[in-house]
Amino acid sequence: MKMQAPPGMRDFYPEEMRFQNWLFDAWRRVSRAFAFEEIDGPIFEHLDLYKKKSGEGIVSELFSFQDRGGRELAIRPEMTPTVARMLAARASSLPRPVKWFTIARMCRAEKPQRGRLREFFQWNCETFGEAGPLADAEQIAMLAALLREIGLGPDDVNIRISHRALAASLLQAEGVRPERTALAFQKLDRLEKWDSDADFARDWNAQLGADARAERVLALLRETSEEACLTRCESAGEEGARVAADLRRLREHLDALGAADYCRFDLRIVRGLAYYTGTVFEAHGRAGELRAVAGGGRYDELVELLGGPATPAIGFAMGDCVIAELLRELDRAPRLAESLDVYVIDADEALFPDALRLVADLRRQRLAVGFSYKRAAVSKQFKLAAARGARFAVVVGQELRAAGQAQVKDLTTGEQRSVRVADLRTDARAFAPRPDPKAGP
Amino acid sequence: MKMQAPPGMRDFYPEEMRFQNWLFDAWRRVSRAFAFEEIDGPIFEHLDLYKKKSGEGIVSELFSFQDRGGRELAIRPEMTPTVARMLAARASSLPRPVKWFTIARMCRAEKPQRGRLREFFQWNCETFGEAGPLADAEQIAMLAALLREIGLGPDDVNIRISHRALAASLLQAEGVRPERTALAFQKLDRLEKWDSDADFARDWNAQLGADARAERVLALLRETSEEACLTRCESAGEEGARVAADLRRLREHLDALGAADYCRFDLRIVRGLAYYTGTVFEAHGRAGELRAVAGGGRYDELVELLGGPATPAIGFAMGDCVIAELLRELDRAPRLAESLDVYVIDADEALFPDALRLVADLRRQRLAVGFSYKRAAVSKQFKLAAARGARFAVVVGQELRAAGQAQVKDLTTGEQRSVRVADLRTDARAFAPRPDPKAGP
Repeated sequence: MKMQAPPGMRDFYPEEMRFQNWLFDAWRRVSRAFAFEEIDGPIFEHLDLYKKKSGEGIVSELFSFQDRGGRELAIRPEMTPTVARMLAARASSLPRPVKWFTIARMCRAEKPQRGRLREFFQWNCETFGEAGPLADAEQIAMLAALLREIGLGPDDVNIRISHRALAASLLQAEGVRPERTALAFQKLDRLEKWDSDADFARDWNAQLGADARAERVLALLRETSEEACLTRCESAGEEGARVAADLRRLREHLDALGAADYCRFDLRIVRGLAYYTGTVFEAHGRAGELRAVAGGGRYDELVELLGGPATPAIGFAMGDCVIAELLRELDRAPRLAESLDVYVIDADEALFPDALRLVADLRRQRLAVGFSYKRAAVSKQFKLAAARGARFAVVVGQELRAAGQAQVKDLTTGEQRSVRVADLRTDARAFAPRPDPKAGP
Repeated sequence: MKMQAPPGMRDFYPEEMRFQNWLFDAWRRVSRAFAFEEIDGPIFEHLDLYKKKSGEGIVSELFSFQDRGGRELAIRPEMTPTVARMLAARASSLPRPVKWFTIARMCRAEKPQRGRLREFFQWNCETFGEAGPLADAEQIAMLAALLREIGLGPDDVNIRISHRALAASLLQAEGVRPERTALAFQKLDRLEKWDSDADFARDWNAQLGADARAERVLALLRETSEEACLTRCESAGEEGARVAADLRRLREHLDALGAADYCRFDLRIVRGLAYYTGTVFEAHGRAGELRAVAGGGRYDELVELLGGPATPAIGFAMGDCVIAELLRELDRAPRLAESLDVYVIDADEALFPDALRLVADLRRQRLAVGFSYKRAAVSKQFKLAAARGARFAVVVGQELRAAGQAQVKDLTTGEQRSVRVADLRTDARAFAPRPDPKAGP
């Protein structure tokens, strides 16, 4: 038998699972604070859904199969098609704006490599039905809030923001023909992948040099301030003025929402996918070696492409793998040990049924309670309690028969006292959890 | 485009997702109270893993496919093979007992029907490394605790318990040859599927009538009390005496663990799968029409079969579909509406940036906070707050500029008061959640 998971797939033992749940809880907590509602879709969809959005080329990146009815199906490689499909199916009845998030498992048939597995989880947030920059600002602020929630400040990660129409307008002013803008975006999206500017320039100039030389484009990307970009955009007709005004308002909203410290304008951010139409953004660890930890943008045409009504939309996603690597690299991953509230110890085998009764009563009060399956010496049971990270031990001994009492020992402080067992059975305050310094009010 | 999920697959809109999360939270809460640790494995495994456990026949029930490396893979149809594989891979280093649970998505290539979908979620609990009846009792008590946690009492659901070795011993005493016991178990597992006893008897007698007539078997199953079964078993040699003693201790432990009110002995429970070796149990809604809401048993030989060391094991699983139907049938499904803690309203468009700043401050305190993307009359914004289930509204008006104050309105009681905004920014106690009558201490 193969004792391992298939290549690129992960087993989550308790230690790894605690990290997953810690991350998922943070995703969920921040999403709810921002008044997003959780949804989910099926683990596989009709293969056509992905072809429709991304073209035939996508098929080689998917795990696809047929069911016995001959339907072509594929394990989901991303959530946006599912979410857009679900939105389209109820577009007429859902009150706008629709703010949805998912915490979803998905698979891609990639060659496994660092930060890129065949199976991963993704936090995916989408806002439908609002075209203005307030929706964009709220999404970016939510991403910033998540980073802050998991302990990553603006010195650790920044969010780079640009706008497809702004970039297109500036590129076209440099000479890129409108019909070649999509190709130019693809090149720019891969800019950081080249070893040197010279390599990028050779590639760009071979295909786009007749429109605009790479050297000029690089100077534009790297040397033009946000204000200069906006001013140039404002002079590029009515559409340019509208885009620039939206970007100015986006900046104001990000400031009011307390996210400005994470954000900076960066014309190099264009995102690879063809369907983005407006604001685009990516979060990058300042360590730099890793890929973007999150990315997204406005895609006002996708819902219609997938068969729904015209619907403005913006969304972003964060995967679990890259952010986990970044946290480890910065030594910010939380240390999450197993922990029990109480470990019940029997000092006398004859009292074991009484100990079990106390176990059940405490569990009914939602305390995490352990005990030993084997009858053993009290000292051995204390060791087991410590090994399981128990905060309190309760020793059920002859005192129970004599006075209805048991010894409660705080395993952190060593403090010990007698407590009436009848009180423990109905009132777990004796085992109040340690105040969590990270918990909210 | 196909606007729907593939057949047998579900879309979880916010309303359905709230139910899923409510159920998953209950599964997780009870598991943790019982000191089980959460794990997970990959969504697909090597196809061989399932063949090894269940034989070639299983393949037709799976969604299987090849990756580009030619590996035969299948979406997981159950968790036990994955969990047993993970246990086997670390069997030598994990301290015993190992108590693991999963809340896992899985798929079976079934014809979709009521309570049986192609994709479902399952709570799966396994205990490894403990052969005695205490592990069995704790698992059954955990199942009972979950039922109680979701509002189902012993009048709604009971847990029927039997033992493979006990049933084998009694059937063999009736004349069933040892090598035909597995076939007899298969027949018994399907007993309730027949329209009448006569239909069952015809089927049984055709294959097993030469060993023991169906009529005698039915009488044994239905008319023999637990005590009579145990007494007969005790007289069937050393092994019989051991089984009977374990069952008596199981009963005592279930009593001490406060689960006895849910439990009853039922010789008809044998479970379909071949690999069970000892205690077997199923939870059934008393309404009766539905299949078992949960089931499991002891399988002391499976880890070894899958390539690990000999390891006693017991586990059970509960799917999300049947329990959801039962809750709906009994009108016990919770009513879970969207709810926000606070809705921030601007009484004056000029104050909107201040309103946004307050939104951000409250969200940082982990409150769920909504606001309108569109600037609108205060009355309209109050309507939006109510539509989103907000508990409080905060109206940011001229009072802010004049006195640093805002109006806080409790949307449940209608009570309204002025509050210093500086206080709200750092102290969310003004919006303390309503006490949840179901919450623990």
